[in-house]
Amino acid sequence: MSNGTSDMQSVQERVRPLLEESRVEELAVLLTELDLHPSDVADLVESIDDVTAQAALVRALPSELASEALAEMEDGDDRAELLGALEPAKGAELLHELPDDDAADLIGELEPAEAAAILAELPLEDAADLRGLLEYDEETAGGLMTTELVAVRAEMSAREAIDEVRRQGREVEDFYSIFVVDESYTLRGSVPLGELILAEPATPVAELVQELPVALTTDVDQEEVGRLLSRYNLVSLPVVGPRGELLGRITFDDVIDVIEAEQTEDILRLAGVSEAEEVRGDWQESVRSRLPWLFVNLVTAALAASVVFLFGDTLEEIWYLAAIMPIVAALGGNSGTQALAVTIRRIALSDGPLEQKSDAVMKELIVGLVNGIALGALAAVVAFAATEWRGLDPQLPLVVLFALWGNIVVAGFAGAFVPTVLDRSGIDPAVASSVFVTTLTDLVGFMLLLGLASALLL
Amino acid sequence: MSNGTSDMQSVQERVRPLLEESRVEELAVLLTELDLHPSDVADLVESIDDVTAQAALVRALPSELASEALAEMEDGDDRAELLGALEPAKGAELLHELPDDDAADLIGELEPAEAAAILAELPLEDAADLRGLLEYDEETAGGLMTTELVAVRAEMSAREAIDEVRRQGREVEDFYSIFVVDESYTLRGSVPLGELILAEPATPVAELVQELPVALTTDVDQEEVGRLLSRYNLVSLPVVGPRGELLGRITFDDVIDVIEAEQTEDILRLAGVSEAEEVRGDWQESVRSRLPWLFVNLVTAALAASVVFLFGDTLEEIWYLAAIMPIVAALGGNSGTQALAVTIRRIALSDGPLEQKSDAVMKELIVGLVNGIALGALAAVVAFAATEWRGLDPQLPLVVLFALWGNIVVAGFAGAFVPTVLDRSGIDPAVASSVFVTTLTDLVGFMLLLGLASALLL
Repeated sequence: MSNGTSDMQSVQERVRPLLEESRVEELAVLLTELDLHPSDVADLVESIDDVTAQAALVRALPSELASEALAEMEDGDDRAELLGALEPAKGAELLHELPDDDAADLIGELEPAEAAAILAELPLEDAADLRGLLEYDEETAGGLMTTELVAVRAEMSAREAIDEVRRQGREVEDFYSIFVVDESYTLRGSVPLGELILAEPATPVAELVQELPVALTTDVDQEEVGRLLSRYNLVSLPVVGPRGELLGRITFDDVIDVIEAEQTEDILRLAGVSEAEEVRGDWQESVRSRLPWLFVNLVTAALAASVVFLFGDTLEEIWYLAAIMPIVAALGGNSGTQALAVTIRRIALSDGPLEQKSDAVMKELIVGLVNGIALGALAAVVAFAATEWRGLDPQLPLVVLFALWGNIVVAGFAGAFVPTVLDRSGIDPAVASSVFVTTLTDLVGFMLLLGLASALLL
Repeated sequence: MSNGTSDMQSVQERVRPLLEESRVEELAVLLTELDLHPSDVADLVESIDDVTAQAALVRALPSELASEALAEMEDGDDRAELLGALEPAKGAELLHELPDDDAADLIGELEPAEAAAILAELPLEDAADLRGLLEYDEETAGGLMTTELVAVRAEMSAREAIDEVRRQGREVEDFYSIFVVDESYTLRGSVPLGELILAEPATPVAELVQELPVALTTDVDQEEVGRLLSRYNLVSLPVVGPRGELLGRITFDDVIDVIEAEQTEDILRLAGVSEAEEVRGDWQESVRSRLPWLFVNLVTAALAASVVFLFGDTLEEIWYLAAIMPIVAALGGNSGTQALAVTIRRIALSDGPLEQKSDAVMKELIVGLVNGIALGALAAVVAFAATEWRGLDPQLPLVVLFALWGNIVVAGFAGAFVPTVLDRSGIDPAVASSVFVTTLTDLVGFMLLLGLASALLL
């Protein structure tokens, strides 16, 4: 144990030569001996470039370890290719070892023909369960849930309930909470396993049951699932059907993955990268995901540039305005991005129906007014010095002051207003906000600077 | 239950009038009757502007609910002000109800004199425990851990262990895993409570113990704590002292809060907002947190502008270059931001020591070459049309092509290189990356455009 780092270095030294020479059988023996965690085995499998060698290693590993490593690999094409490279019977053997939500995630990544071949090798009941789970959108509560859980009846005594947990628990991994249902399998609440053990054996479960603050329907979006689990500190969330009947549960570890994925998505979207781009994907994928946004940006930048053309006469007269333009644009863009980032996180973190809603737009307007006068005044002082030194138009400092100030105020307003409006319209506020806000600040900045210049300096 | 939204609306309707008229006693009775979750009560308390009314509501609530609501409030000044507004004896009563990590977080937010007054009201032993926890940096494993846990000895039988769990469990909230220690309290592993119940009563715990993939020392950074819990899907992580002795545990719910806070920090840092800014803070705080970055940006933008001054002669001759400058700058800036966001997430999500390290810089260079030629060519075609139409210099399309292409390649390189170097130097790659990359792309873009123009067009 310790914190693992030094151990891992020696593991790496022993593993690397076997890995480099693709001696997969020996590698499998070594990994099993080392008793590595499936997540670490998953990293090793991923570090092999050739899918045939990956498949050979997976075949050589004990199937419990192999299946868990497969579940811990990063979602996506590489994993699907590996599973597709295994014989369907071997694939089915590995999936059979996994909780049904993990198995469904894996099956869902395959080509339809490959998926069908593996499902055909599974016991009928398992295959039917998986087909059921595959019906749900993978980004909803239904897509995240496992149907494997432990539930007891409210009428049981604590002793009977513990016996029932013993019976059901052999089939279920990592149950932390026991769900309590009535005779029609309607969810009544949960009882922590610890409470069940602490209770007097004759106590009815109905007396121990704790009402759950939330039960999800299958169509709840995964982002909302993350919010609720985090809000209520629950180790697992129940999923119920239309009549309140218990269908499954979602555990904290799947929710952590969702929170991380959603936040990667937010950062990438803010930066104009399509959320389909995998962080470790290849360059072709990156080009496909980013080029469309850059084309949009080329068009919006050309729009801002067209303002400059409108003021051709002014620029022809006073060329050094071209040096001030990027300063006004940069400060507007950055102020807008600041307001945007804070507003987007504020929207993402606002979770409760009883939460206080303060006015983001008004606050950002005030911040823009204050930051704008501070920066505008400083820039105007520099412009004044330059004016004195080089004998430029004495009105220049005024133009600089008002162009910067105005642009920073507009930037703050837009940075708060755009995502708020997108969110109220049900659109992810991170998408396109950034392109829109920076185009606006470029446009407004150039218009203010060149417009004021043509009015005051010509 | 259901998904809670409609219930919450009716709660809101009953609560609002009491809230608006600050009828806190009636409100307390209503909230207790409604059996609201502490997180919902926390939101209600936060929605009251006046700290005296907040304190009155907290005093009127049953102390268990009041203490949990306090723990669920957002960290920071408002919560500290509320706790400071209560009598020290009341504060101590509430803290006494909480797990020691939550109590320590609350105490840590207070002014030293307020903290001392509350600690003086607590039982000596509790106060000593809290003082011990307060020694740790709050962003480390020591700062996150609770010392309240359930541990059994490896020599015990399953039956004895369950009795021990019964004994210890009354004092401890939400224990999901039972830690296993030897006679010197050295951590040996853990056993899920479920396994203990499933086992034959006479089985020695030593046979059931599962080795833990990781044990943290108190100084491990909270970001690393989040990574490890998420990597190994553990519901709680043990924290050990220098000799491997068990000191405490960190549970998944605290880690989810950390993951969310770290990601807010990443997004804000990327956007040039100090991580000290609270997403729901007031405008004064926002000005303090953002203005320094904007000053830095004013200086860097002035640096880029100085390049424009170098080419004053060229601009005086060909004023319409001023319209092309912002296009080159915008596309360079956006390409750089894309590369930056992907690289920063890739660094944040890379967790395993055995993980494959592919070359981010080389990939971004290729992406830049491809995106750059595509966008450069398109812009050159437009420039060619403009050249024909307005009789501009026939070399203009070439200048546009190479300026855009070159700048986008540099942007991709810098977007991957800067955060990688910062990360290797132990600096958070999100800090300052953005300002550095966009300044560089402004500089390089203007230099390429104006330099090529003065060479080819004059």
